[in-house]
Amino acid sequence: MQYLAIRAALHIAAVFAIYLSAAMLVPAAVDLYYGNDDWRVFAFSALFTGGLATGVSLATQGRAPVISSRFGFLVVNLMWLTACVVGAVPMIASSIDFSLADAVFESVSGVTATGATIIVGLDGMPPGLLLWRSILQWIGGLGVIALGLFILPFLNVGGVSYFRIESSDIEDRPFDRFSTFAVGLVSIYALLTLACGIAYAAAGMRMFDALNHAMTTVATAGFSTHDASMGYYNDNPAVLWVGTLFMFVSALPFSILILFAVRGRLDALRDPQIRVFAGYVVVFVLAVAVYLRLANDTPFLQALTHSAFNFVSIITTAGYASDDYSQWGPFAVAAAFVAMFLGGCSGSTTGGIKAYRFLILFKLLANGLRRFVYPNTVVTVRYGDRPVEDDLQRAVVLFMSAFLVIWALIILLLAATGLDFMTAISAALTGLTNVGPGLGPIVGPAGTFAPLPDIAKWIMAFAMLMGRLEILAVLVIFTPVFWER
Amino acid sequence: MQYLAIRAALHIAAVFAIYLSAAMLVPAAVDLYYGNDDWRVFAFSALFTGGLATGVSLATQGRAPVISSRFGFLVVNLMWLTACVVGAVPMIASSIDFSLADAVFESVSGVTATGATIIVGLDGMPPGLLLWRSILQWIGGLGVIALGLFILPFLNVGGVSYFRIESSDIEDRPFDRFSTFAVGLVSIYALLTLACGIAYAAAGMRMFDALNHAMTTVATAGFSTHDASMGYYNDNPAVLWVGTLFMFVSALPFSILILFAVRGRLDALRDPQIRVFAGYVVVFVLAVAVYLRLANDTPFLQALTHSAFNFVSIITTAGYASDDYSQWGPFAVAAAFVAMFLGGCSGSTTGGIKAYRFLILFKLLANGLRRFVYPNTVVTVRYGDRPVEDDLQRAVVLFMSAFLVIWALIILLLAATGLDFMTAISAALTGLTNVGPGLGPIVGPAGTFAPLPDIAKWIMAFAMLMGRLEILAVLVIFTPVFWER
Repeated sequence: MQYLAIRAALHIAAVFAIYLSAAMLVPAAVDLYYGNDDWRVFAFSALFTGGLATGVSLATQGRAPVISSRFGFLVVNLMWLTACVVGAVPMIASSIDFSLADAVFESVSGVTATGATIIVGLDGMPPGLLLWRSILQWIGGLGVIALGLFILPFLNVGGVSYFRIESSDIEDRPFDRFSTFAVGLVSIYALLTLACGIAYAAAGMRMFDALNHAMTTVATAGFSTHDASMGYYNDNPAVLWVGTLFMFVSALPFSILILFAVRGRLDALRDPQIRVFAGYVVVFVLAVAVYLRLANDTPFLQALTHSAFNFVSIITTAGYASDDYSQWGPFAVAAAFVAMFLGGCSGSTTGGIKAYRFLILFKLLANGLRRFVYPNTVVTVRYGDRPVEDDLQRAVVLFMSAFLVIWALIILLLAATGLDFMTAISAALTGLTNVGPGLGPIVGPAGTFAPLPDIAKWIMAFAMLMGRLEILAVLVIFTPVFWER
Repeated sequence: MQYLAIRAALHIAAVFAIYLSAAMLVPAAVDLYYGNDDWRVFAFSALFTGGLATGVSLATQGRAPVISSRFGFLVVNLMWLTACVVGAVPMIASSIDFSLADAVFESVSGVTATGATIIVGLDGMPPGLLLWRSILQWIGGLGVIALGLFILPFLNVGGVSYFRIESSDIEDRPFDRFSTFAVGLVSIYALLTLACGIAYAAAGMRMFDALNHAMTTVATAGFSTHDASMGYYNDNPAVLWVGTLFMFVSALPFSILILFAVRGRLDALRDPQIRVFAGYVVVFVLAVAVYLRLANDTPFLQALTHSAFNFVSIITTAGYASDDYSQWGPFAVAAAFVAMFLGGCSGSTTGGIKAYRFLILFKLLANGLRRFVYPNTVVTVRYGDRPVEDDLQRAVVLFMSAFLVIWALIILLLAATGLDFMTAISAALTGLTNVGPGLGPIVGPAGTFAPLPDIAKWIMAFAMLMGRLEILAVLVIFTPVFWER
């Protein structure tokens, strides 16, 4: 690692922090509008972090470094870390009594679009703070898509990018193309949020709630403005179905929507991960709905509404709850646990293992079993009609292995802080997959992460960040080879 | 698949069943000696299955098929299935009231050297039946070693066989070499059992108990002659340390002991998986001992004795318990859960993921992270001083993926039968890794699998078999390509 690269990465992070500071003026304005004194908190935070960031950005100006993959990893890690720290500042400064661990946990949960919360009493919160949480998730969600579409595939960490696969385009002025797509991404993300907000409002949400939930729905992130999460709208199926629909759409590869907007073509619909994703969503939602009907005598339509909302919410790693599904019976709890692993498509706002990895693993497995029978056949592993490069195969496999090992480690660490079995294994999982709530009475859909000891909150913050950057992009920072000159 | 191959595989399985029937005469003799009426059960079962097997073996005589990997998979699956069925016959016929599911569960748990039991009241059981359970595990253990050393590596399913790696030997009269090694394996396995039995007796066990526990210790299998398992010897640290030592030794690659016996050389001690295995054993044992000392104020030596016995027992997938470690506190429970994944070395009697897979995965991960930094370097993955072939890399990776998916499936199935979260996820895991006890009040170290519904026992039987044959060797049977002509 060159000194030049570290300085340049710090510069980029500092400029990013200036933008984030500017974003604090939005909740400041809202608090001012609602006559809430907390506007000072946001104004002060904006000045403080903005000033500090400007200082750092000036101090780190200089020649651009050689663009290398190491530089890419450094920038990605630093930007996310910066957002986590900047996001926590208004919480620490706010009139509500957050500990440092609380503020960092909440900010990380926001920026990583996880949606786990340590706040009890959301319904009486100042609107500025509620909006700030939603803004963090909305920006985080946008960052996740950008990461999955533009950055990780080029760093060979995996992610099936249709932009990357179109190699003829890449050779032909990649940066022009990149900026077209970046503008396309932001426009579509904003339009989708707007549409979601209007739909929520039409279904009966208050304007402010509709805006906040729209931002955290499209980011499949899951912060709510109510302690009961979407259970607040328990008697309003329209709201739940709007949420289900927009979570599902946001879990699709954004490349499809972008290509449609930019080029007016829909051939990317053939992306086979969509069928895999839709397939396991339908299986889980139907299985749990039938189980609710049979085991708990819930009327089928009601069962389907809640099964669809909560299981689409878990699978897309949004993490809203319309009900305490941990009380639905053993099968529903086990299904929620397994669903936490799944995730949506690559290039979406979701976390977890994701449909394209399952598809590639399944292909590798089928291929491997065939080779047991016919040891001398060589079959190319294909994703749709394109061969899967060795690098991508390797990245998928490494992700799975690293995921399992890191999960085990976090379980042990959390249990060492005194958390019971169910809390420890589900919290470790929900952190790594950025779902949000875990299972059990403490961190389950009816609980919060507030009762956890501070040290467990720091461990969870680390888990959420790890999971958000697809584990390997963080691990690489900890290798000695990364810091070699 | 040719008709000829199926017939030949049936023939081999039938001949194997004749030997197993003959083995029933041992418990018959013991029951006769102790004046227990159950000797008739074993004599009858021996005649019945022996007669049936002879009939099948005569009916399936004929030309030898072409030896192919498909034939190998078929024989392996059929032999294990045969042992499970034959093992259950004396239980069904016995004076004790077993349901069919009970008898099959207990037999599968025996033959797969798992050690989960549905029997309550072991202390008052007829000695013949206790011995039969131990014999099933002892034979199962021997089969596992043979599978790992001689069979799976040649079917490309994985397993690091030093015999295979010595390619100069393979070309030079492989079958001579095989029979030398097979005789070496059986001799050393028997000697180790004898030594273990003498050590148990010297530590204070009754002769009959020493014999039974020796057989199930060396097989890292875990059936006991007491309901309290090794908790019966709770106040006898000598017995527990003997158990710890022999479980540890039996989890080492038997190839080392065989090469030592056959060739008088110890260079295989350089096998790097041994360091990995010993490493995680030491870490878990010490961590839990320190935790017991700090959290529960247990005197350190006592804490170390029980931590060593129970965690070596879990890691080597033996599954004895000297105490109800589910009451040791959250960290111990989480550690037990994570330890269930681990396993011993390849070519041993243990189950689980195993040290060599972790080693290869770690090498692949380190290699992959290096390639993120230097995309154009090509580094060979090495196991010790030998390169790891692509086939082995692929097998390791496929095993991990299949393991995770099958585990999730079995969790869902078990939960659908009504089992609670902790029972379902730990039972699914302990079945697949052939450990034995799970976690929680029902299937934990203080419980048994008796309260499970019959359908859950069948699912568990399937899980144990799957795990024992390293998952892929069973999965391949279910592919259409396997049955192609």
